[in-house]
Amino acid sequence: MTMSNGGAGGRRKPPTIHDVAREAGVSRGTVSRVLNGGHYVSPAAQEAVNAAIRKTGYVVNRHARSLITGRSDSIGFLLTEPQEKLFEDPNFNVLLRCCTQALAAHDIPLLLMLAGTEDERRRITRYITAGHVDGVLLVSSHSADPVAEELREAGVPLVQCGKPMGLGSKVSYVAADDRDGARDMVRHLLSLGRRRIGVVTGPLDSPGGVDRLAGYKEVLTEAGVEIDERLIVSGDYSRASGEAGAERLLSQAPDMDAVFVASDLMAQGALTALRRAGRRVPEDVSVGGFDDSSAATESTPALTTIRQPYDRISNEMVRVLLAQIGGEDPAAVILPTELVRREST
Amino acid sequence: MTMSNGGAGGRRKPPTIHDVAREAGVSRGTVSRVLNGGHYVSPAAQEAVNAAIRKTGYVVNRHARSLITGRSDSIGFLLTEPQEKLFEDPNFNVLLRCCTQALAAHDIPLLLMLAGTEDERRRITRYITAGHVDGVLLVSSHSADPVAEELREAGVPLVQCGKPMGLGSKVSYVAADDRDGARDMVRHLLSLGRRRIGVVTGPLDSPGGVDRLAGYKEVLTEAGVEIDERLIVSGDYSRASGEAGAERLLSQAPDMDAVFVASDLMAQGALTALRRAGRRVPEDVSVGGFDDSSAATESTPALTTIRQPYDRISNEMVRVLLAQIGGEDPAAVILPTELVRREST
Repeated sequence: MTMSNGGAGGRRKPPTIHDVAREAGVSRGTVSRVLNGGHYVSPAAQEAVNAAIRKTGYVVNRHARSLITGRSDSIGFLLTEPQEKLFEDPNFNVLLRCCTQALAAHDIPLLLMLAGTEDERRRITRYITAGHVDGVLLVSSHSADPVAEELREAGVPLVQCGKPMGLGSKVSYVAADDRDGARDMVRHLLSLGRRRIGVVTGPLDSPGGVDRLAGYKEVLTEAGVEIDERLIVSGDYSRASGEAGAERLLSQAPDMDAVFVASDLMAQGALTALRRAGRRVPEDVSVGGFDDSSAATESTPALTTIRQPYDRISNEMVRVLLAQIGGEDPAAVILPTELVRREST
Repeated sequence: MTMSNGGAGGRRKPPTIHDVAREAGVSRGTVSRVLNGGHYVSPAAQEAVNAAIRKTGYVVNRHARSLITGRSDSIGFLLTEPQEKLFEDPNFNVLLRCCTQALAAHDIPLLLMLAGTEDERRRITRYITAGHVDGVLLVSSHSADPVAEELREAGVPLVQCGKPMGLGSKVSYVAADDRDGARDMVRHLLSLGRRRIGVVTGPLDSPGGVDRLAGYKEVLTEAGVEIDERLIVSGDYSRASGEAGAERLLSQAPDMDAVFVASDLMAQGALTALRRAGRRVPEDVSVGGFDDSSAATESTPALTTIRQPYDRISNEMVRVLLAQIGGEDPAAVILPTELVRREST
């Protein structure tokens, strides 16, 4: 009996990774990296290894490989929010789709993990630290998330979406420039002649909350407009909190002529409150959002907003995470935003 | 140096699973089953083991354990639909929440896997068959799904939501009684004096499509009402397909006085088409949906519909899957539906 790999007569062992390396003229480590998705391998070396695999008839045993490498060849997308948020907030939908696509280019599957409660967090952390995923893309609207610290201590490669508060540069993250985006929006409202500009912030334990508020205050101060605390309220990024926030602003500052709402979904809620109060948008009150999610285009009127570049954010999150899995140190990436003008201002 | 587990002087080894079994007065297998989530263990034995764990100070090494048992202690929720469906169709949201809760009662985490494209299916199947989950809850609107057959052949415990077409009883499934639900709805429409009753079916490669249509035809025939093919169109469970379906029905059969739409989301679309055509609901046309999802209560008018018991469906899916992981043969569970009357009929 002859094996099918074309040996010159007699019994031959199936080809090994060593045979592939010899044939390709590269190190065993390079073959291994190609087999593990081709990260950090030059196109030329990758091609040589692929040719050698075809020539030797080497068959990859993924199961055995993952036992040897300790790799699962998969990435978790961890959302530490109640499940309802995933379905309400269009930002998560977009992030999930873009991250899935960015990983697909590396042939890596994405596992979606929802951990909105203490118990869910415990179970998912256990699963992750047992090695069933190689790294985690962490998405949370509260950035002092205990999960980030736990995973970091367990040595799990991790990239957070948005700046983690408190952990400084110990955790990798990718974020849009929240402060600069807020500055652009408030400058735009000032340019329309508005002076009584309210703000509905995000949660103040998140940089999206803190930094966008800071940008708002900076620009008003620079323009010589007094900061009026009656024009500042906070929401939690839900539509309902935007509606309640705008209602509170209208009762505290009935002369408000513009409002910067720190997410498009909250801005949708604010539009509802303004309509109910008989205020016309943009004639009586200009409304600016943040995100440029589907909530901005589906609102009536369509929202002027600050575009977060979710495609770039997702690509960068995946790039930084794969680099970290490959041994690199954590990194932070800040990406510019852009003002998108529509009907609400 | 003394170990902290209270040995009577001298060096002692950390307690083992044998020590726990002896202390609890149960077999090592029972301790193992408790450590693996407590499936098939009586409450009394479970309590004895937990007490013995506390008393001996035994520390579970989950990582080592999962290497020994070959178990990941996790379940995948696999949706073989484009990602957008997850966000558009409220049924998935409810199923996901109910399955998460049913698994939480067993302290088992749920991993959400989206596989809408051929490539995504290949990657996710690879991940699943590598043993990173112990079993799969499969949700798909097309029930001749190749993934079911692949996973079954790979020996992965699997329970499908809805009857798998073609695989017969080789794959476990849990489904609402589609035919009986459709019968109830059409009988209800007949009881209102309606005789020109249209139907927008689900995809005809799914039992939700086939069986609900069969129920519709049966009841009309039993009542002596002629089956008119101009009153029958198909959709794909999306809102847009319900809108297009109702439009087609109105042009083919302008005298239509009722329509049974095989999902609430499609029925929402049908309401839009009827409104545009100037038909009042329920005065001119009675509209019945299927599912009793949030789409039914959020519609204007609120939809009369057939309630699918998603909480029971989810509980049964989890129960059957855990039994199968424990070695039992596949099983099928059919659950009754219920007519819920609201404003649209």
